[in-house]
Parts: sequence; C-alpha cells; structure tokens
Amino acid sequence: MAGFSDGVIAILITIMVLDLKVPHGSDAEALRPVIPLFLTYVLSFVYLGIYWNNHHHLLHACERVNGSILWANLHLLFWLSLVPFATGWMGENHFDALPVALYGGILLFAGLAYYLLQTLIVIAHGHDSALAHALGTDLKGKISPIGYAVAIPLAFVSRWAALGLYITVALIWLVPDRRLEQARST
Amino acid sequence: MAGFSDGVIAILITIMVLDLKVPHGSDAEALRPVIPLFLTYVLSFVYLGIYWNNHHHLLHACERVNGSILWANLHLLFWLSLVPFATGWMGENHFDALPVALYGGILLFAGLAYYLLQTLIVIAHGHDSALAHALGTDLKGKISPIGYAVAIPLAFVSRWAALGLYITVALIWLVPDRRLEQARST
Amino acid sequence: MAGFSDGVIAILITIMVLDLKVPHGSDAEALRPVIPLFLTYVLSFVYLGIYWNNHHHLLHACERVNGSILWANLHLLFWLSLVPFATGWMGENHFDALPVALYGGILLFAGLAYYLLQTLIVIAHGHDSALAHALGTDLKGKISPIGYAVAIPLAFVSRWAALGLYITVALIWLVPDRRLEQARST
Amino acid sequence: MAGFSDGVIAILITIMVLDLKVPHGSDAEALRPVIPLFLTYVLSFVYLGIYWNNHHHLLHACERVNGSILWANLHLLFWLSLVPFATGWMGENHFDALPVALYGGILLFAGLAYYLLQTLIVIAHGHDSALAHALGTDLKGKISPIGYAVAIPLAFVSRWAALGLYITVALIWLVPDRRLEQARST
Repeated sequence: MAGFSDGVIAILITIMVLDLKVPHGSDAEALRPVIPLFLTYVLSFVYLGIYWNNHHHLLHACERVNGSILWANLHLLFWLSLVPFATGWMGENHFDALPVALYGGILLFAGLAYYLLQTLIVIAHGHDSALAHALGTDLKGKISPIGYAVAIPLAFVSRWAALGLYITVALIWLVPDRRLEQARST
Repeated sequence: MAGFSDGVIAILITIMVLDLKVPHGSDAEALRPVIPLFLTYVLSFVYLGIYWNNHHHLLHACERVNGSILWANLHLLFWLSLVPFATGWMGENHFDALPVALYGGILLFAGLAYYLLQTLIVIAHGHDSALAHALGTDLKGKISPIGYAVAIPLAFVSRWAALGLYITVALIWLVPDRRLEQARST
Repeated sequence: MAGFSDGVIAILITIMVLDLKVPHGSDAEALRPVIPLFLTYVLSFVYLGIYWNNHHHLLHACERVNGSILWANLHLLFWLSLVPFATGWMGENHFDALPVALYGGILLFAGLAYYLLQTLIVIAHGHDSALAHALGTDLKGKISPIGYAVAIPLAFVSRWAALGLYITVALIWLVPDRRLEQARST
Repeated sequence: MAGFSDGVIAILITIMVLDLKVPHGSDAEALRPVIPLFLTYVLSFVYLGIYWNNHHHLLHACERVNGSILWANLHLLFWLSLVPFATGWMGENHFDALPVALYGGILLFAGLAYYLLQTLIVIAHGHDSALAHALGTDLKGKISPIGYAVAIPLAFVSRWAALGLYITVALIWLVPDRRLEQARST
C-alpha cells in the first residue's frame, strides 16, 4: 500500500508540470502568462510534498491494515489526484474567485480524507498504542481543514486573502511532523 | 511482477485526471461540461481501485510464477490501460449509447482477463492449494462479466440502465475480498 | 537499477494510451480513425511487454553492476522511450512508408542497445558464469536486429510486408525466455 | 525516500517524450521541426540520467535522514521537474537566446539544490564519516554550477557557445562517480 501510494503521489507531483504549457514565442513577453501557472505549481508542489511526507511517516508507523484503511487510503488519493486539475484551473484564470474557492475545496476534502485515514489507523492499533500517543492531539490536522473551510467563502471576498491562508497552512505543515518520527525511533 | 503491475495501475489511475481538461472560463458555467467527465472519472477511479486491491491480494497469495501467468498479467494490464480512453470518450459525449457500450466492453475484457489470470495461478498452485480453497467458488468473479455482457446491449436501449449496472457491479466489489486476506493470515 | 527501469517501462507502456485521442463524435464513424492507432498501440504494448519481461529476467540474473552497465541500461531506456512517439506517428499516418521505417529504426536501435547491455553484463560476470551459459548462443537476440534492418528498406517497397516482419519478430519473442528462468532456479 | 525520488525522476525522464509532438505529415519534411526538439530531448535525457545515477548513489550511501534532508530532496526534485518545460521551450524555439538561458537557469538551481542536499547529508553523518571522505573535494559538483552561471549570460551573446557549455558539463559527469561506489564497497 505504501509503494502504490508513493507511486500515485510521485506521478501527481510530476504531471502537474504538464499544465505548464510551453509558450509559443521566445521572448520575455511569451513567458508572462506562465507566471501565475508557475506560482500555483509551486504551491501545489509544496502541498503534495507535505502529503507525501506525512503520509509516508503515517504508513510506516502503521502495522495493521484492513479493508477500510485500504479504501480510506484510496479515498485520500482520489482527492489528491484532483490537485493538478484545480491547480491548472486556478493558474490559467489568474486566481479568479471560483477557481481559488475550488482549490480550497479540494484541499479541504483531502485534509478530511487524511484525518479519516489517520483515525481508522489509530482505531485499528488501539487508543493506547504508541502510534495513538505519538499523534497526540494532532493540532495541525484539526486546524488545517478549518483554514480551508474559512478560505472557501473568503475567496469570493478577497482572493488574495484566501491564497494567503493556503500559503499559511502550508507553512505550518512545512515543519516536519516530529511526532511520528519519534514514535518510530523509540 | 507485483511492483510493475502496481506501477502500471498507479499510472493509469493518475493519468485519467489528464482527461479532465482545464476549462477556459472561470465561472460556474465553465465548469458544467466537466461534470460528466468528473462522474466517469469517479467511476473509473473506483474500478481501477478495485482491480488494484484484488490484484494486489492475488499476487501476494501467489507463490509460483511462470511464463503464461506473466503474459496473462500483461494481458490484464492491456485491457485496464484502455480504461482512461473509454472513460474520456464516455464523459465527453455525455454518456451516449456507443461510448457507454464500449466502456462495458473494456470492463468485460478486463474481467475475463482477470479471471484467466486467476485460473492460471490456481492451476500453477494446484486445485488443493490454500489459494484455490481461499478463492472458493468466486461468485463475484463470475457474476461481474455477466453484468457487463448484459450492460453492453442494454446501453442501446437505456444508457442509464447500463450505467446503473456498472455502478452496481462496482458496489458489489467494494466489499473487500476477505477470502484471500484470510488465506494469507492462516 | 531494476526498480528504476521497471518504472520507466511501466510509464512508457502506459503513456502510449495518451496518443489514443478521444474522438469528438460518439458514433461508430468517429471511432474509425482510432483503429490504426489502436492496432499500433497493441503492437507496441506487446513489444514493451517483451522488453520488460526479458529485461526483468536479465537484471535479476545480474549480480554485478558497474558504471558502463548502468549507462548501457539508460541507453536502452532512451530508445524504448521513443517507442510511443514512433507508435503515434505510424498510427496517425495509416502506416505510411516513412513512419513504418522509423518504427523499425527505433526497434533496431533498442534491439542493439539490449544486445550491448547483455554483452556488458556477461563480460562483468565472466564468460564461464552461469549467466553466460544460460544465455547461450542467443539466437533470438541476433535474429531480431536483422529482422528490423530488413524491414526498414522493405517499408518503402511494401509497408505491409515490413509490418508483417515486426509482428513475426514479436511472435518469436512471445515464447518466454526459459534460458534465464532456468539459470535462476538452478 | 530513495524509491519516491527514483519514481519522480523516472516519470520526468519519460514525460519529456510527450513534448515530441507527433507531426501531421508523413514525409521527411514533416519530421524536420521535430529535430531540434529531439536534440534537446537527448541532452535533457542525459542530464536526468546523470542526476538519477548520482542521486541514487548518494541516497544509498546515506544512512541517516532528517526533516531538512527530506525537504532538500524535494527541493531538488522541484527544479528537476522543470527540466521538461525548459526542454520543450528551448526545442520549440530553435535554441533562441532566452529559452537557452532559462534552461541554464534550471540546471543552475538543480545543481545548487543537489549541492545543498549533499551538504546536509554530510553534516548529518559528520565530517569524519566515510561518506564525507568519499565525496572529498567534489570538484565536479563545484565546477558545474559555475559552468551554468557562465552559460546564462553567454546565451545572449552566442547561444551555441552556451549549448556547448551544457554539453561539456554533461560529458564531464558522464564519467560515473566512482567516489561513492568505492565508499560503499569498502
């Protein structure tokens, strides 16, 4: 399951670059429409990198797999697989309100899917397991969906504020998840 | 063989999202033509997820590989590789009769290819092996091709009935295949 | 090296399906231009399947890797990576002479690259090694490039004769390579 | 981490071929615009091959991973993921000055990212470790970014001189990195 998931995320993170369409001219002017696409590409690359990182740690700490964990994992991959689409739409429309809101919606569902997967894994291991203790209160995992849920309506008021929220949540996650790293080493 | 197959299915499940072309406008109207594509994407994602899941269990229970098993596996991957094409055609034509029938045809051949692969693996392990007993009568594996075979002509009468059959068969499979899971744990 | 190569071949065999462009209409007429593309897709799928199969056996029998083997392997992957391009060009032009000849050229270089890789591996293991004995005279590996070399000029006389040669060589290879399988089991 | 990185590089090296658009005609004339694209494809294939090779050796010699190494690795993959875009732009514009300079810019950032990753790995292992000794003065790793940095302004004077520099640096790297190979075997 870890190998398949790593493969899917590796492909997703890579095919996003296919949306960076090669411009026809060869001067600086021709590059300009690529800039918003490039910026969204960077943001989505970081998000998928965060998911890969945390997901990788989670699955390695996971010792028991059952049918519902397996489908919760595919459910997470489903929402992540829509990130390149949302990225392309947001980038091509210069951060218009609806694409920015949709981007937040995909992040929200992916965040909830990750939380569901994590919860099912904790249940399978027992609430007294090392894994459950390592995850602790999981503040980040609870704050992120709230951030996305706020950003979606916010996009229709100020797209830049919504984008700022996406970037803020990403920065919070960039600090690596030491909880599971420690759980493995002890 | 398991790694290569996982890789191919991971790529197939991911490149389908490339058929979700980014719309040019940025309002709700622009998203509308994407909706049927999105729905077929969900259906095909679930089908490939089912195949990955069952195929993964089958190959892990499999201890002996020979040339014919290897080619039966590639034969299955061939039909699965046509799923993104059939998905795109069905989604872009708003579930017209012929694309819906073709989608069923691909599912039918993939189902038969899976059955053939499974049969060759059982033969290689012997009809008295734990694997053979675990698979048992394989009711699902026999019902599914019948479902697809009925859906193909049905598509020309009622496309929605045919689609309903595809969804029904998928739901039957969503219950994970406990037979092989048990065979491994005993 | 085996994992990376398997990955590249898995991706190549899968992205070929992206050349099967979804037709715009939804009747049988709309499918017609896809037919030659589909037939070349089948041929190339079989060829890449053969390469994956033999390459997989070769690398598993290989115990020593050095810099030149590594680059000979990338060199083989380079020619294989051009198969989707040659497939698309041949299929879109209904088997015109030049695309058919180019297809043969790619197969020829891939065949020579495979032969070079195999030779370097044999040298690294010694001509008295089990691997060298298992490969034996390697009749198939010597006949195939001759077949392609004949097919290239033949394409300008009769494209169907050239295509027939490609299919014949593929059929010769479809018989799995028992030599290396035996070498591993003894 | 090694598996994920290998996967991403395998995908990047393969999706570049998607930029080799199938020409519409079927005569030699139709192939002509593909030639510059093909030549840049060869150059980028070699560069990604070099990165895969060295990166693979580096990660295998690496025994300790921490959060900053993980993100330094994703940072390297980010710059490598832009290689197909830069390749397509340079090839489609027949090696115009700006695309040639941008190509050098991507190579420069990828080279610096690799150097950063290597430095973080050396720090994690200690300056007295076998890994640190094996890397030694790392002349190639220091010369390459200088080569790219020189090529970028040079592209606006003579594009062919800049391209010549890219090819020269690639040739320097084609000699496999024996330092790490030795470190592993001792």
